[in-house]
Parts: sequence; structure tokens; C-alpha cells
Amino acid sequence: MIQINENYLKLQASYLFADIAKRIQAFQEANPDMPIIKLGIGDVTKPLPQACIEAMHKAVDEMGEESSFHGYGPEQGYAFLRETIAKHDFQARGAEISADEIFISDGAKCDTGNIQEILATDISIAIPDPVYPVYRDTNVMAGRTGEFKDGRFEGITYLESTADNNFIPEIPEKAVDLIYLCFPNNPTGATITKAELQKWVDYAREHKALILFDAAYEAFIQDPELPRSIYEIPGAKEVAIEFRSFSKTAGFTGTRCAFTVVPKECMGYDSSGKAHSLHALWNRRHSTKFNGVAYPVQRAAEAVYSKQGQAETQERIAYYLENARLVREAMAEQGFECVGGENSPYIWIRGNMDSWEFFDLLLNKAGVVCTPGAGFGQCGEGYIRISAFNSRENVVEAMKRFREALA
Amino acid sequence: MIQINENYLKLQASYLFADIAKRIQAFQEANPDMPIIKLGIGDVTKPLPQACIEAMHKAVDEMGEESSFHGYGPEQGYAFLRETIAKHDFQARGAEISADEIFISDGAKCDTGNIQEILATDISIAIPDPVYPVYRDTNVMAGRTGEFKDGRFEGITYLESTADNNFIPEIPEKAVDLIYLCFPNNPTGATITKAELQKWVDYAREHKALILFDAAYEAFIQDPELPRSIYEIPGAKEVAIEFRSFSKTAGFTGTRCAFTVVPKECMGYDSSGKAHSLHALWNRRHSTKFNGVAYPVQRAAEAVYSKQGQAETQERIAYYLENARLVREAMAEQGFECVGGENSPYIWIRGNMDSWEFFDLLLNKAGVVCTPGAGFGQCGEGYIRISAFNSRENVVEAMKRFREALA
Repeated sequence: MIQINENYLKLQASYLFADIAKRIQAFQEANPDMPIIKLGIGDVTKPLPQACIEAMHKAVDEMGEESSFHGYGPEQGYAFLRETIAKHDFQARGAEISADEIFISDGAKCDTGNIQEILATDISIAIPDPVYPVYRDTNVMAGRTGEFKDGRFEGITYLESTADNNFIPEIPEKAVDLIYLCFPNNPTGATITKAELQKWVDYAREHKALILFDAAYEAFIQDPELPRSIYEIPGAKEVAIEFRSFSKTAGFTGTRCAFTVVPKECMGYDSSGKAHSLHALWNRRHSTKFNGVAYPVQRAAEAVYSKQGQAETQERIAYYLENARLVREAMAEQGFECVGGENSPYIWIRGNMDSWEFFDLLLNKAGVVCTPGAGFGQCGEGYIRISAFNSRENVVEAMKRFREALA
Repeated sequence: MIQINENYLKLQASYLFADIAKRIQAFQEANPDMPIIKLGIGDVTKPLPQACIEAMHKAVDEMGEESSFHGYGPEQGYAFLRETIAKHDFQARGAEISADEIFISDGAKCDTGNIQEILATDISIAIPDPVYPVYRDTNVMAGRTGEFKDGRFEGITYLESTADNNFIPEIPEKAVDLIYLCFPNNPTGATITKAELQKWVDYAREHKALILFDAAYEAFIQDPELPRSIYEIPGAKEVAIEFRSFSKTAGFTGTRCAFTVVPKECMGYDSSGKAHSLHALWNRRHSTKFNGVAYPVQRAAEAVYSKQGQAETQERIAYYLENARLVREAMAEQGFECVGGENSPYIWIRGNMDSWEFFDLLLNKAGVVCTPGAGFGQCGEGYIRISAFNSRENVVEAMKRFREALA
């Protein structure tokens, strides 16, 4: 008899987006003439940079000619892209990451979900709250948690990010082996300083723990003092794996390209305490269960680093950050506490009411959709997340409606 | 302390392609004027069909304009592609598969590697020998096997495909829960009849087992009596998951698009014996750990089904099959037993010597590279695999050299 992985039965069905859709539909039926503005989803709205479009067209043409056709590429990604990334994103910032420590993939979601496969099942894990649910759910699937009770999974150390700690979780009292961190954070938009990140690196080195650092939003960092990569922190290469994406940087959400950095010094241990290279393990996983990213997509990603690509990317980032500033300004004017939005496309807003109440208020009074914070975990209760990914026109109109509705 | 998944330590390093590369290099150094012809790798050489190129250009243009830009798509793939596949590949052949039973992905390698995640660790598995190594290695990684001893992993039931059974493995005597089948087969090129496949489906239904059916090479089937999908077999929808790919059909090895069919009737069981939908489990896995295929790539895949796309695809299949015919003809002339190559791009050739000896003979006497059968498992010993994926010119020249070398 074919038995299923029963860990899947522990997963909680996500009603968040279904619930949101239901409420939107009810509002729309009651207010057929009111155009709804969606500031809920973290998806970009600006098109791909022209530099990427041109590179992709050129690569597509190559695929149509026998002499320039590309079949299977290296599972780890083409050297042209890995070398460009290493130079631009790391070496230029003093982080000595080499091209062969970079693994190109089709998404940071996939990588942050898959990475735990190379680790033992009985390690102890620490996951932020509020959180991007993929970290948690992939560990539930792998059997690293107990049942879901009272709103949380047994066996997870929750790293609480609240106003009390400025949304930077404290080092847990209970020793943990695997730590998920995400900065600039989704959903709170909070950033971490080098000094604060150093504490985590020091902890990991002391306890032989591993940090999984999700830097998918690093391109939004404007403050030159903030680290864009964990490898700007001394010692991090021994204890951290970093995830990056072209999704939010250059609008690749529908084009699919990302990468993971696994430094060669980064070690895991077997049950006898012997060290093993996580780079070798991930390479084995990646080359056994993945077959590389489409050649035209890798050429498009390479073009992000061209002079034109950089200019276009910066323009997009600035555009979304100006949206974020407008949201912060409007919400602060109405007396709401906000975090994020300065080095991040997300603004995390305390509502002085429960998340869904705040959601309903904004939907019903302003026709604007946000994401209720409670959907990201217990510590999200009382908050909403507003995304800056929309047109200026829509953001301006949404804020106008907020001012009228909340006044 | 961060502990690794120690199952990875059981994996055998694959020296196959490294070994091949080393021998090629030695030959090339000794014979600098002899151009080597590679008939070893299963990678296509013909460019993408023009129908796909045009569709991709159009989609890339859409990605460059705000009004037609595509961000995150459905994880399961766009309806336009799922519906086209369901209609063309299944319903037109009498297999009642609906669009929402199809999951678009970036590769059959990924899907055949990932599918086992939704199943329990302690099920018993049956894997062909010789075999595409991904089935085996992903189960080793997941902890479903013991150690590697005497050339095989403990805990796997090997389904031996040999000349004695016409390369169609027999139903194992020991009951198994999970069965991997691949037809047309890689590496042997063997095909399975409906009657033979019915036996496996009947077995799976009787034992509540699950068949993972890899049909990546179905487009090469010319014999109208042979099944192209397992769902042409009555009862299969209850017990089989099928994997398909655009890689070999339309030359997508460097473009990356494939799909998996999980019928809604297909069930797995929990430890209490309760049935659970594998469709729901795979949907959860797919949407948690995957984020969809690039929009331009899905449009290119859709174009494979256009009138022009079908004509171009058929032309490519016919081209490679003519290559295969030339290989079979030449090898048969020299007195070698061959299987495959008629409904498959692979020819499996018995060498009357060990695999590496045969490999060396062809390399050193003819400057032609094949793949030693022993690299695919114990039952591959004594065989080589020749791939029809090359230009006609190269295949003709290789066969000319074979005739001279082996005469």
C-alpha cells in the first residue's frame, strides 16, 4: 500500500488569500462602481527593463539557429551569469564570494523551500514570526515539527518580531541549529544593522548553527550603512547561506530567476561530529533534482547588470520606494505607527484594532485591499502589510481615499 | 550543531561522465587531427521550432510593456497551456485527463525527483535496472534505501530489464508500494505494449501501489498500437502519475518546460489506511516549493501544439529517428544485437564485451563517443547506449567509421 508523507496532514490550509478574495467579491458586488485598488500582493507592476527584453530577444534568436542553439546548460547556471553576480553583488561590496559558490535557480521560493533537504530531520529550527510561510511549511512537510496547536507548530522556536524589539528578533534562549532570517523583512519591512547581524553570526559560529539569510529585497536598501549581504559580516561565510532573487529587483516574478550562495567554508556535521561541505551537498541536490534555468532567462538576468540594466533597475526601485513613502506619509498623518517602506517595498502598519477589522475598514471605506498581518503569524495580529508594488496613480488615489475614510 | 542529511553520504559519486571526459581527452591528445563525434549525451541538436521562437518573441514583448506585463503566474501553470495539453495529448487519445490534473513545471527531472516527497519514507520501492539515475538517487537522499553494497543499494527492488525479458521487467515477486517505469525507455529504447502495461496497472490496483510513469520520450513512438500515455490503460488513473517533457519533443532542453499529470482519482493512504488525494498533496508541494514557469516559456510550449509547431516537431522527431535507423542498420550489419531506435531516440547495443571495452573500442578506433551501459546499472553491463541526437552528417560519418573500424 502506497503511504503518503503524513507530515503534509499537519499543514494548515491557507485561507488567507481565499478569505481576502471572498471579502473583495462581496465589496465589489455591493459597490459595483468603486474601482478596487490592490495593495496586498508583493508582485511587481513595472515591466521588465528594456535591457533584459533586448537580451532575451537576442537569446531567443540564438535558440532558433542550429549554430547558436543551447541545449542543456550547467545545472548551477552559466558562468557568464555567475561571474557577473559574484563581481557585482559581492566582491564590489567587499564580500569575497566566488562564482562557483553561486547556484542559479528559478526562484528564491524554490531555494528557501528546498535547502532544508540537505539537513537532518531532527535539528532544532528557529523561524521568525511574522514570516513568509514557505520557511515554516517546508519544515512541516519534512517532519521537523509536531502538530499545529493553539495557532503554532510544536517544535519550532518562533523568533518574535514586535514593536518591543523594533522588529529585530532576539537570539533565542533555547539553543537552535537552523535559523531563518529575512532582511529587509517580508512582511514587516524592517532592516537589520551590521552590529545586530553580527550577533547572529557570532551565535551561529559559537553553536555551530546555520543561518539561512533571505535577502530577496536587498535592492531596496538605500541606507549605505545597512548590510545588503550577510557576507559583509565577518565570519558569516562559515555559517550562512544567502538567497537572492531578480523578482523584486528587476521585475522577474513572471520570468523566474534567482540564486543561492553557499560558501565553500560553510559546514554541516554528521552524527559523529565530522564536518561536511554544505556546498558539496547542495551541489549534489541541485544537480540531481534540478536542470538549470532557461538560457534566454539567464541572458536577461545578466543584462540586469549592464549599465542600462542598472539604470532601469534603479529607476524601478526608486519608483516603488516613492510609493512606499507616500503610504507612510498618509498613514503617519492619520496617527498610525509604521515600520518599513524606507529600505523595503513593504510598510507594516499597526492598526489599533485586529488585523481583519483593519482590513475590512480599508476595504469597505476606501476600496483598498491590503494584507492582514495575522496571516503571517501570531505576531502579525493587529497589523496590516501594505505593498508599494503598484502604479503611482493607484497609490496616490488609495492614499486620498485613506485620508477621507480615516479622517 | 547543524546536522546534515546523512542519507547523502550513501550516494555514489558519479564518475561516469568524468571518466568519459578523461578518455576523450586522452584520445584527442593522441589524435589531434581526428574530429570526435559525440553520440553519448541525450541532448537535442536541432534548434527550437520557429513556431516557438515566434511565440517567445511575442511574449517577451508583452513582458516589456506595463499593459501586457505578466508577474507571478499560477504555480500550476497558465490555463492556456494546461488546456491545450489536456486536449491534445490526452483527450484526443481517449485518455480523460482534465486541465486541472496537469501541473506545468521546469523539467521532468525536477518532477520525477520531487514527486517522492509526498510519499512516506518507509514504503518499498521498485526501480528499473538499467535506469535514469534520478529515480534512484532521490530515493537514496530521502532515506528510502540502505547502504550501497556490491554495486546496488539495499532496500531497493531492482526491476531488471535484460535481453531475456525483452527489456520489459517482470512484476516483482516481493510486493512493492512504488514503481518507477519509463517507456520508451532511457537508456534501452525499449517500448511497452498496452497488454504489458495493463499488467502493471492491474498489479498496482490490486496492491494499492503507485506507478510513476516517465513518458518523456513518448513523442518518438511511431507504432500506433503502442500506448503514449499510461492513461490509455483502463484503471491507470487510480494508480499512476505521468511525467512528460518538451525537452526531447520540441528541443526544450535549454528552454525548460515539462509537466506532470496527477489524476484526481489517484490515491495514497495514511497509516490508518484512509485514502488521501495525491493531487491535493502534489498541489500543496508544487505551490509551496515552486513558483511557476516563465511566461514566455509557457507561450513557447503552447506553440508546440499549433499547426506549424506540430509540423516542425514531427519533422525533428523524424530526423532523429532516421539517425537512429542509420545507427541500427550499421550496428546490425556488424552483427551486434540492438534494441530501441524505432520508437525511441536511443539504441541499446550488446557488445559481446564489457561496456567500457566497447566504449574504448569505438572511441579509439572510430573517434566516436557513446555511453557505456554499465553507467546505468548492473544490467547495463555489456551494452552501450547510442543517442540519435546529432546531425545527419555526423551520424553518417560515425557509421562509416564504425564499419571501417569493426569490419
